[in-house]
Amino acid sequence: MVTKQFKGLPEDADLRRADSLAREIFSDVATKWALLIIDALGEGTLRFSALRDEVEGISHKMLTQNLRVLERDGLVVRTVHPTVPPKVEYTLTEPGLALRETVHRMCDWTRQHLAHIEASRHRFDA
Amino acid sequence: MVTKQFKGLPEDADLRRADSLAREIFSDVATKWALLIIDALGEGTLRFSALRDEVEGISHKMLTQNLRVLERDGLVVRTVHPTVPPKVEYTLTEPGLALRETVHRMCDWTRQHLAHIEASRHRFDA
Repeated sequence: MVTKQFKGLPEDADLRRADSLAREIFSDVATKWALLIIDALGEGTLRFSALRDEVEGISHKMLTQNLRVLERDGLVVRTVHPTVPPKVEYTLTEPGLALRETVHRMCDWTRQHLAHIEASRHRFDA
Repeated sequence: MVTKQFKGLPEDADLRRADSLAREIFSDVATKWALLIIDALGEGTLRFSALRDEVEGISHKMLTQNLRVLERDGLVVRTVHPTVPPKVEYTLTEPGLALRETVHRMCDWTRQHLAHIEASRHRFDA
């Protein structure tokens, strides 16, 4: 599209393009589970089980899958301590911490607009 | 959990709780399609077809579903102009615009970390 060309963004960085690298990465992180995991890890390194407690409602499978995606993207580091049984811990990287700032704002936004949204839902459903 | 009680948040505003209103709302907006729609509408009112062009790759069905959720939550207003055929337009509300600020930061974060993430993926896959 012409408007997209005028923005002067390299194709890979254009989130609006379905085939861009930016869209691919955005799809990895723009999910409730990925964002809640990043938010939970923002308070410090956690073991798998502690992380699962923090992100209430996430299944073992979803947590495993999301952590793998975040590790692959370099947002989370997985450390295995050679104990018996092995202790596995997850920590945010610098880019993960930078994303956490954004997630934090989104969480704040959610809390600030609870009343507005609840009222709007009641009107819509009526 | 004890730590949650210490945070002093009302239960409904605690995103970590699987059954909170905050979690429910976060689940509505923390999806790539909802966030990309909000980003696109941040530049101004759009008709359905124009919005679909802006959010490349979204299906008719997903756009319809997401707009309905966003309208119900009071983040988007749907206006039907009584023309033949009717013209339907979508506009962000104030809370929608406030969320857009956050989405904007998330998009910026994505663009800023493309190289890091791409390199991390190569290492992980190797």
